[in-house]
Amino acid sequence: MKFVIIGGDAAGMSAASRAKRNNPQMEVTVLEKTQDVSYSACGMPYNIADPLRDMDDLIVRKADVFRQKNGINLLTGHRVDKIDPVAKTVSGVIIPCSTSFSDLDNTNCTNSNQTEGYQKFSYPFDKLLIATGATPLIPNIEGVNLEGVMPLKSLEHGRVIKSFINSNLYSKPVKKAVIIGMGYIGLEMCEALRARSIEVAMVKPSSRFLPWMVSELADVVKQELNTNSIKIYSGYDIQRVVQADKNENKKAQSNGGSPLAVICKNLSSSEDLTLDADIVIVASGVKPCSQLAVEAGLETGISGEISVDKALQTSDDNIYAAGDCADAFHIVTGTKCWIPLALRANRAGWAVADNVCGIETFLPGVAGTAVFKVFELQVARTGLTVKEALNSGFDAVEVVIQTRSKAHAHPGSQTIHVAISGDKKTGRLIGVQMVGKDGVAHRINAAAVALHAKMTVADFAQTDLAYAPPFGPVWDPLLTAANQLLKKL
Amino acid sequence: MKFVIIGGDAAGMSAASRAKRNNPQMEVTVLEKTQDVSYSACGMPYNIADPLRDMDDLIVRKADVFRQKNGINLLTGHRVDKIDPVAKTVSGVIIPCSTSFSDLDNTNCTNSNQTEGYQKFSYPFDKLLIATGATPLIPNIEGVNLEGVMPLKSLEHGRVIKSFINSNLYSKPVKKAVIIGMGYIGLEMCEALRARSIEVAMVKPSSRFLPWMVSELADVVKQELNTNSIKIYSGYDIQRVVQADKNENKKAQSNGGSPLAVICKNLSSSEDLTLDADIVIVASGVKPCSQLAVEAGLETGISGEISVDKALQTSDDNIYAAGDCADAFHIVTGTKCWIPLALRANRAGWAVADNVCGIETFLPGVAGTAVFKVFELQVARTGLTVKEALNSGFDAVEVVIQTRSKAHAHPGSQTIHVAISGDKKTGRLIGVQMVGKDGVAHRINAAAVALHAKMTVADFAQTDLAYAPPFGPVWDPLLTAANQLLKKL
Repeated sequence: MKFVIIGGDAAGMSAASRAKRNNPQMEVTVLEKTQDVSYSACGMPYNIADPLRDMDDLIVRKADVFRQKNGINLLTGHRVDKIDPVAKTVSGVIIPCSTSFSDLDNTNCTNSNQTEGYQKFSYPFDKLLIATGATPLIPNIEGVNLEGVMPLKSLEHGRVIKSFINSNLYSKPVKKAVIIGMGYIGLEMCEALRARSIEVAMVKPSSRFLPWMVSELADVVKQELNTNSIKIYSGYDIQRVVQADKNENKKAQSNGGSPLAVICKNLSSSEDLTLDADIVIVASGVKPCSQLAVEAGLETGISGEISVDKALQTSDDNIYAAGDCADAFHIVTGTKCWIPLALRANRAGWAVADNVCGIETFLPGVAGTAVFKVFELQVARTGLTVKEALNSGFDAVEVVIQTRSKAHAHPGSQTIHVAISGDKKTGRLIGVQMVGKDGVAHRINAAAVALHAKMTVADFAQTDLAYAPPFGPVWDPLLTAANQLLKKL
Repeated sequence: MKFVIIGGDAAGMSAASRAKRNNPQMEVTVLEKTQDVSYSACGMPYNIADPLRDMDDLIVRKADVFRQKNGINLLTGHRVDKIDPVAKTVSGVIIPCSTSFSDLDNTNCTNSNQTEGYQKFSYPFDKLLIATGATPLIPNIEGVNLEGVMPLKSLEHGRVIKSFINSNLYSKPVKKAVIIGMGYIGLEMCEALRARSIEVAMVKPSSRFLPWMVSELADVVKQELNTNSIKIYSGYDIQRVVQADKNENKKAQSNGGSPLAVICKNLSSSEDLTLDADIVIVASGVKPCSQLAVEAGLETGISGEISVDKALQTSDDNIYAAGDCADAFHIVTGTKCWIPLALRANRAGWAVADNVCGIETFLPGVAGTAVFKVFELQVARTGLTVKEALNSGFDAVEVVIQTRSKAHAHPGSQTIHVAISGDKKTGRLIGVQMVGKDGVAHRINAAAVALHAKMTVADFAQTDLAYAPPFGPVWDPLLTAANQLLKKL
């Protein structure tokens, strides 16, 4: 049995390792276009924050360990350019280690440029896993390729950003950053850049800050950014990034100015906004790397992600997809969704390996549970927003409460904000969002489990959650929120 | 409708407040023997730790607020001595505020001594709630009534202990404490006493430290106590507490000695152990205050707790019981249990009020979820231990794992120890225990919800829990534990 995997990050390496554990005799080949495998991408902002840490600290296991200890035929620098589902082969070219970063990172994910002169390869497969991940959405604007403008997705992106900040490019330290986009990565990068004493402005076209979040909670996050001197410009079209010419640039620098500027236009007033920057981080979201699958005729979903069933199988019986390039069932709606997150990628990789090895495995799906840190604030969500719920046919109602993170009179207690929604027709819990400086990150998981169990709000309100004064009030914030919601159901 | 409540703490005041919210016209009378109502008993160790905090900070709402704002006929200093279920009356005596502490705190909870000379009362009821709580188990040994030997259960106990420590009794500061018992309260008191620079020794008869806890995890707790210079003597019979006579005492003090000594005998070697003490905290557990109920002919359970159905009704249709004096159904076994904890007391109080007001309410039961803090360590549990599970007819198996509280390479990551058990016959999750310095307290709740939902370990292992590097590894410790347990099921 030849099991071939395209992509050597979370889903790909999880699948490869588990397949070899399940069946040490299986021939498992991983084709990874970069030189990096198995790293903690989500850790990059925190690594960038600390000038003394090596970016390679984020590598969980080195390629040689997978090769020698796990017996995986792990081939880095192997860029797959084509899947032939009939001949059951994958083919591509071998990219030398010295190849420039941009060659590995074109946004169509297939890197189909630059094939000449490279050594070609072709591998037959019995079962194939596409685990090509996602790639940053780069706005199609002038100046996006200027030096100092960079996305953050792969480990190599992380290295480039960190070395840019560390190296005092332009003979002066990076003092000003503009982040294009206000998603998880952009928000996490705020803290990292402030830790490096860099001024930060964030800008994006849509007018609502954190549009998926209940406005009262989004305001708390915004306030935390304000407190930490982050400038927020929502509702601005990003028109271009410009670089002063060399002479002007030198002048600008001698005046303490920055070599780049992001030119924006206010979408409601049409006023111009110019944001000076020594570095521009492009964090406008990601798109699935599904071009190879599309070209092979596999079914895809509305965001272009590869469509898979609960066994992670694509529309071709011999081809699986897992990780950020593939979709999932949402456990609340039961319908397809594309929520590219790390746990799902790892879990889906395992499930593919099990299925390939004959251990039938079906994944129920995702709840869209996520947590991130914005300075001192913990921000978490699970399930649907009210808008998503209404769109999915639920008769959704919501309450938003404020309570405390610790018991009455216990020192160090912080405000916790909880938004909770339920379905008037069935009484089912639909979603929870939480924001606070203490005790949010893990609390959300109780709600996530309740969503998996399709619990009613009434049943959830009766759960026996832990209480001790240093950790919460007698009525956990989730229970208080559920009790309030019950009055509306 | 006359709704009478005996006891004005968590269950009693929750019931009274909710009844008045449900039905402002209802005549709600609370009869509380002490002068304290509605306080956070669990907060007492943390309050004692801080010499500057007033013990009355723990009062959530003062008696007058309940009277004036909520319209509750709250009668403090009213000790109920008898329930007549046929005549539907409760009767007792009014204890003046100046009455000594010990009069309010005899261990049979009925305080039937000292009735002469006090003003008597009798109240008729349509519905009665017994919310008399629990009382400390005081070992029947010589010297247990000496000055300086005290339990910690009521707010008045807390005041006495704190004022004893604050007041430099015997003209010298309290330097040495002995805690009899090693339950939640004893363990929490260790930290409080160490915060006051008091040396602490703990002693108890049973040989196993934290007998309900998986030994690997109990060892971690023990190590934390050792690190904080707590001396632990398990397997010692406590024979008596002695006080040096006044002259000897003075001599002892001038030599830096302590006025009390706890005399113990090693149960395996018969060797004597003498523990010097300026203060002895009796924390050997509690027993339900059910004497009134017993005398009224109500059914009780094996620990003497009042037996109630899911509507909190006792064996008498007009009498309910809630809080630490009453039992509950265990949601894992479906059978009765007595796990006196604060959330259940509050919740049961509400449910009684709803039922009394005609809003039919049934409580599913408890999972035995608990958390406590031992210095830097968070210790949590939910569900059954393996021993309990085997006794309840489950084919229980268990795994114990160690993992990290934060992502790979994230600073500040701590070890998390997880013990998880499941049933081989049905695959059901049975219980989880966790110990660690970071991220334990709220993580346990995800498992508690899974127990309520009667989830299998396989389904629990598929739940979509939150991930971000500052808050955990990609695979949450609970998921890693569940995945390991699956191999045994």
